[in-house]
Amino acid sequence: MSQKNEFDLIRHYFAPLAYDKGALNLQDDAALYIPTPGTELVLTTDTIIEGVHYLPDTPPEKIAAKLFGVNVSDLAAKGATPKACLINFAPHKNVSEVWIAAFAEQVGAALKAYNIKLLGGDTVAAPDQAMFSLTLIGEVASGGMVQRAGAKIGDDIFVTGTIGHGFIGLEDAKAERLSPCRDLFEYPQPPLAFALAAASYMSAAVDISDGLAADLGHICKASVCGMQIDLPAIPFADPASNDLLAQLNGGDDYQLAFTAAFENHDTLKQLAADQSIQLTKIGQITNGNGLILLDSDGSALDYSSKDSSTGLPSGFSHFGMKK
Amino acid sequence: MSQKNEFDLIRHYFAPLAYDKGALNLQDDAALYIPTPGTELVLTTDTIIEGVHYLPDTPPEKIAAKLFGVNVSDLAAKGATPKACLINFAPHKNVSEVWIAAFAEQVGAALKAYNIKLLGGDTVAAPDQAMFSLTLIGEVASGGMVQRAGAKIGDDIFVTGTIGHGFIGLEDAKAERLSPCRDLFEYPQPPLAFALAAASYMSAAVDISDGLAADLGHICKASVCGMQIDLPAIPFADPASNDLLAQLNGGDDYQLAFTAAFENHDTLKQLAADQSIQLTKIGQITNGNGLILLDSDGSALDYSSKDSSTGLPSGFSHFGMKK
Repeated sequence: MSQKNEFDLIRHYFAPLAYDKGALNLQDDAALYIPTPGTELVLTTDTIIEGVHYLPDTPPEKIAAKLFGVNVSDLAAKGATPKACLINFAPHKNVSEVWIAAFAEQVGAALKAYNIKLLGGDTVAAPDQAMFSLTLIGEVASGGMVQRAGAKIGDDIFVTGTIGHGFIGLEDAKAERLSPCRDLFEYPQPPLAFALAAASYMSAAVDISDGLAADLGHICKASVCGMQIDLPAIPFADPASNDLLAQLNGGDDYQLAFTAAFENHDTLKQLAADQSIQLTKIGQITNGNGLILLDSDGSALDYSSKDSSTGLPSGFSHFGMKK
Repeated sequence: MSQKNEFDLIRHYFAPLAYDKGALNLQDDAALYIPTPGTELVLTTDTIIEGVHYLPDTPPEKIAAKLFGVNVSDLAAKGATPKACLINFAPHKNVSEVWIAAFAEQVGAALKAYNIKLLGGDTVAAPDQAMFSLTLIGEVASGGMVQRAGAKIGDDIFVTGTIGHGFIGLEDAKAERLSPCRDLFEYPQPPLAFALAAASYMSAAVDISDGLAADLGHICKASVCGMQIDLPAIPFADPASNDLLAQLNGGDDYQLAFTAAFENHDTLKQLAADQSIQLTKIGQITNGNGLILLDSDGSALDYSSKDSSTGLPSGFSHFGMKK
C-alpha cells in the first residue's frame, strides 16, 4: 500500500475515535488534558512488539485488545481510573486497509469498555517488525494511589480470578486450540471495577503480568518484606496439571494480587461478590525476605535460582525439613 | 548480549535518571504525576524508528537528542512547559553496553537541559529495527495553550531561526560532512524559552517538522484561512541555493512558525532579542485558502500538486500574471 493511502486510512479509522475536545481534532501534534481537581495522575505505558509479545500472524483485533488489556491492568493495580490515552501506531509498511480497520474497531471497543478518551499519538510505517505503544493516563484521589510498597507484616495476600490461564492460553493459541484460557490470554479482562472500588482497602497491589511468583516478588522487594504462600490455596486455572510451576510463572494473567489488613477482609469479600469477582486468600506477609511457598503437606518450597533479567524464578525445589 | 545483562544495564543506566519521587523508583510499572494547580496538561508523543527517521548506524546520542528535540519542539509550539516524560525504549536485541550508556547519557543531558523529570516507560529488545518513543507532559496556565487554530485575518506570520537547515543538515549527514546545519539537524534546538515567554502574544503556532510550507498549511487548515508568504523574506539557511524548494519542504527544522496581531509585534521582537532568537516576519494571514508564495518580483508561486500522505507539496510552479 502506498504511503498516501496508509496515512489517509489511519486518519479515516482513528480520527472518529478521537472525538474528545482535548484531541484537538488530531490537528495539533499534541493534546490537551484537563485534570479533575483534587486528583493526581497515574501514568503507564507498555509496548507490544511483533515476534516478542505476539506471533506475526496474530489478528489485529487481538493485538489491540492486548495493548489495552495490559495497560488497563497496570492502572487497575494502582486503583487509578483510566481517563485518556495516546497510541504510538507502527504497523507494517505494507499493512492492509482491512487490518487497520479491524485494529481501529477493537481500539474503539476498548475505549468504550474502559471509558477512555483517545487524545492522540503518532503513526509510522515500520519497515520490519510492527510495534504498538499505549500510554494511559489515569486519575486517583490525591494521595490515593496504591503502590507495591505498602504491605505490612501480618497483612493477608489475595488474588483475583485464576492463576495460570495466561500460560495455558498461550499454549492453546500456539496449538490453535480454542479455550476459555486462550480467550482470556488474547482478550485480557483486568478486574478494573473491583480494583477501583477496593483500592482504598488494599495496602499494596500488583497486576499479574510477569507471573504470580515474580509479581508477588515485586511487592516483597518494594515493601521490604517476605511472604508465605499456601500453594494449595492458589486458584490455578488448571489445578490438576502436573506443571503448576508453569502456571505460577507463566504470566499474562492480568489479574490482581494485593495485600490487605485483616479488618478489611469482609469489605473486600463483599466488593468482590458485588462485582462477581473470584477473590482468594493465598498467604500472608512475613518479616522475611522473598517468597516461601508452602506445599499441601506444609513443607516449604523455594526457588532454586532466579533469572534476574525477568525477575522470574527459573525453578523451585524442596528445601528444609518435611513436617 | 544476554537478556539478563541487557535489563540489568538498562536499569543501571536509566534508574539514576528517574530520581523524581513520581517515578516510584521504577518499581511500580506506573508513575505518579501531580499537576500544578491552575494548569492544564499538554501531551505529545513521537516515535523515531531505525531506517525511517535515522540511518541504522546513527550514534545513540544523536538518536536520543532527536527524540527529545522533536517532542520538546511540539510542546514549544503549544507554549507548554515540559515537565515529565515516559520513554518506550526498544533498542536492538544485540545492543552493547557502550550503546546504552551513550543513549542514557544524552537522555540525562536532555532531561537537565529542558528540566524534565523521567517518570518511567518500558523497555523491550527489538528483534529487527530499533524504535524509540517519548511521551512528554507539559503544563500551560488554564486556557493558555496555543493552538494551530487561532490565526486571524490580518495577523502577521513569523518564523524563528532559519529554514532549511534540517534539509541541508540531512544532506551533510548523508555525505558525512560536518556543518552547523548538520549539528542542528542532529541536535535540534527548539526555541523553548522564547516560546514560553512569547506564547501569550501568539494567535496560532506550529513547529516546523514537516517543512515550513506544509506546517504553515497546518495552520491554514486548522484556522480556516489563507496565507500570503514573501519568499524573499524567508530566512533560508542557504539563501544562495538553487533549490530553495527543498529547504522550504525539507522539514526537521524544529523552529517555530506563528501568527500574531500587529499590536504584539514589538513585544515579540523584544522577547526574541532577550533570548537571542532570530525572528523574521514572512507574511500575512488572508481570507483565502492555503498558501500563496510571492516571489521577489511579486509574482505568485503555487504548489502544482500535493502529496496527501505527508501533506508536503511535491512541487510548485508559477501561475497567474507577472506584474
